[in-house]
Amino acid sequence: MAKNDLFLRACRREPVPYTPVWFMRQAGRYQPEYRAIREKYSLLEICRQPELAATVTLLPVRQLGVDAAILFSDIMIPLSGVGVEFEIRESVGPVVHRPIRTLAQVEALRPLEPEESLPYVLEAIRILRRELEVPLIGFAGAPFTLASYLVEGRPSRSYTNTKAMMYRAPEVWQALMDRLTEMVVTYARAQVRAGAEAIQIFDSWVGALAPEDYRTYVLPYMQRLFAGLRDLGVPVIHFGVGTGALLELMREAGGDVIGVDWRVPLDQAWQRIGYDRAVQGNLDPALLLAPPEVLAERTRAILRQAGGRPGHIFNLGHGVLPETPPDALRRVVEIVHTATAAG
Amino acid sequence: MAKNDLFLRACRREPVPYTPVWFMRQAGRYQPEYRAIREKYSLLEICRQPELAATVTLLPVRQLGVDAAILFSDIMIPLSGVGVEFEIRESVGPVVHRPIRTLAQVEALRPLEPEESLPYVLEAIRILRRELEVPLIGFAGAPFTLASYLVEGRPSRSYTNTKAMMYRAPEVWQALMDRLTEMVVTYARAQVRAGAEAIQIFDSWVGALAPEDYRTYVLPYMQRLFAGLRDLGVPVIHFGVGTGALLELMREAGGDVIGVDWRVPLDQAWQRIGYDRAVQGNLDPALLLAPPEVLAERTRAILRQAGGRPGHIFNLGHGVLPETPPDALRRVVEIVHTATAAG
Repeated sequence: MAKNDLFLRACRREPVPYTPVWFMRQAGRYQPEYRAIREKYSLLEICRQPELAATVTLLPVRQLGVDAAILFSDIMIPLSGVGVEFEIRESVGPVVHRPIRTLAQVEALRPLEPEESLPYVLEAIRILRRELEVPLIGFAGAPFTLASYLVEGRPSRSYTNTKAMMYRAPEVWQALMDRLTEMVVTYARAQVRAGAEAIQIFDSWVGALAPEDYRTYVLPYMQRLFAGLRDLGVPVIHFGVGTGALLELMREAGGDVIGVDWRVPLDQAWQRIGYDRAVQGNLDPALLLAPPEVLAERTRAILRQAGGRPGHIFNLGHGVLPETPPDALRRVVEIVHTATAAG
Repeated sequence: MAKNDLFLRACRREPVPYTPVWFMRQAGRYQPEYRAIREKYSLLEICRQPELAATVTLLPVRQLGVDAAILFSDIMIPLSGVGVEFEIRESVGPVVHRPIRTLAQVEALRPLEPEESLPYVLEAIRILRRELEVPLIGFAGAPFTLASYLVEGRPSRSYTNTKAMMYRAPEVWQALMDRLTEMVVTYARAQVRAGAEAIQIFDSWVGALAPEDYRTYVLPYMQRLFAGLRDLGVPVIHFGVGTGALLELMREAGGDVIGVDWRVPLDQAWQRIGYDRAVQGNLDPALLLAPPEVLAERTRAILRQAGGRPGHIFNLGHGVLPETPPDALRRVVEIVHTATAAG
């Protein structure tokens, strides 16, 4: 069977026979098979064993019939390669043992050598490329989102320490963002060399910033990041949550595809981003808990908003929730494929 | 001395000699005096002792020179009057002992009789009206935000159970929103009868919804809520966080003043809301941790965006952070007053 490359063609805004679909966190707690594996291994243990990471990555691909796979990993993983000690604490999230607050701490971060410190990531990618019949997406956290974990030391609602560093110690912030930008570029390039066919950059928490702060403290690094990936020739997806007021700036920052959440209607989002970029999104993950007819109607509403224009990749606006019935995801895949093939 | 009524005049979009300013959570942990009181009393104990609630309400008014006071209370308070058992857990937030999931639970909620069950709130308002030389703002949580605590049982990031109820059990959702709308109207009316001169409705977490969901599951109740306060003749402020894509719908819902957070530039927000409404906002609370010159510049930028148009009330985009130096708040008051008086 020829490989299904609809996802890659949609990223390049080429016409496709039907709209491709995948789901952020399509491998995860909502799957009984994943929960069984997690009874034996921690999240980081799965990430660090290439065969296991590959198995988990593959789980949803055939089960759901999605048009792309995304490497099972965590945005914190590359930080272990630059000298950051952290853990993923159950029902909390990433906890960094010594939050970064000083220039000395930033300067102590080592350059990333992915082949040395993250061989398991690259090996998982190589295994997956042999197994997969759909494109493999690699990924990395964006510098702001990674910095927010490093500076806060754990998930935050207000990002007080991160913003305080931006305003009060811009030289520390700049040094940190410089290092993280370099790390992300190195990491993403290594993933592509190992076989990743697209890269998604998760700037998940950047929606906490006022547009003016994004422009000053984030945009220059993001531009450098996307410039550093351009010659690879693979599509790059630029995603964030709650970025309704940042879409124009995210476009300016870069990315072939802009990922949007459900807070902005997709038609408005695409118009603001510009039709010279592809868009990915944007069903509220909570709608997967809705009755079938509500879910179907809202899925079709997003397809109508996309307007049959080439360059739409269907996805959720954020990761699959643990409470999600797998059947609901299967139904969405079927609706997206059928409705757009007929259209 | 004549009472300073600039805040009320700005709510009505009347010309004022300078822009009034107050801060959400202007009484709180950032104040050494508040922390000292909190060593002896829990948050709910302060709310339930009128003299103490009045003292805490007054603390920032003279210290900061703000143009309005807001009753020290909590959005959960009226729920104790309808039969909900909850606590405010340290560094967690409101925890509801038996989260509401069924129609029977909704129907078991009692109608609110504020004079019977919340006399301390009304007494605090009466004390404050005797003491204050600036207008007193009463407040209530909006139905969606209250429902999110009742259904989730605690603060949430994803509002999974709340949204699941909306989609899967619309009859339970409608009954719950009906009760909460009635409760909020009754509660706000009682506050105004006791002496509150304006009401702020906090729909703090409604920004989690897609616009379509807001329209279906929230808008009708908010319209009824604002209609139920109209004859009181006091200004009503309608506030939410992360509502960048909901501003037009919030305007449609109601409120003389729309409160906006820092994620949308104030000039764009006001244009979208319409100049026939006043606006309140919208400095990122984290900027109070910035060096004085950065804070001053960003404060002035918001005043420039307001454009000297009558109907701007300066405020933060959300509550004062515990890490805030009181001096920074004083400086913002002075800058807002001076810059707009000169203009």
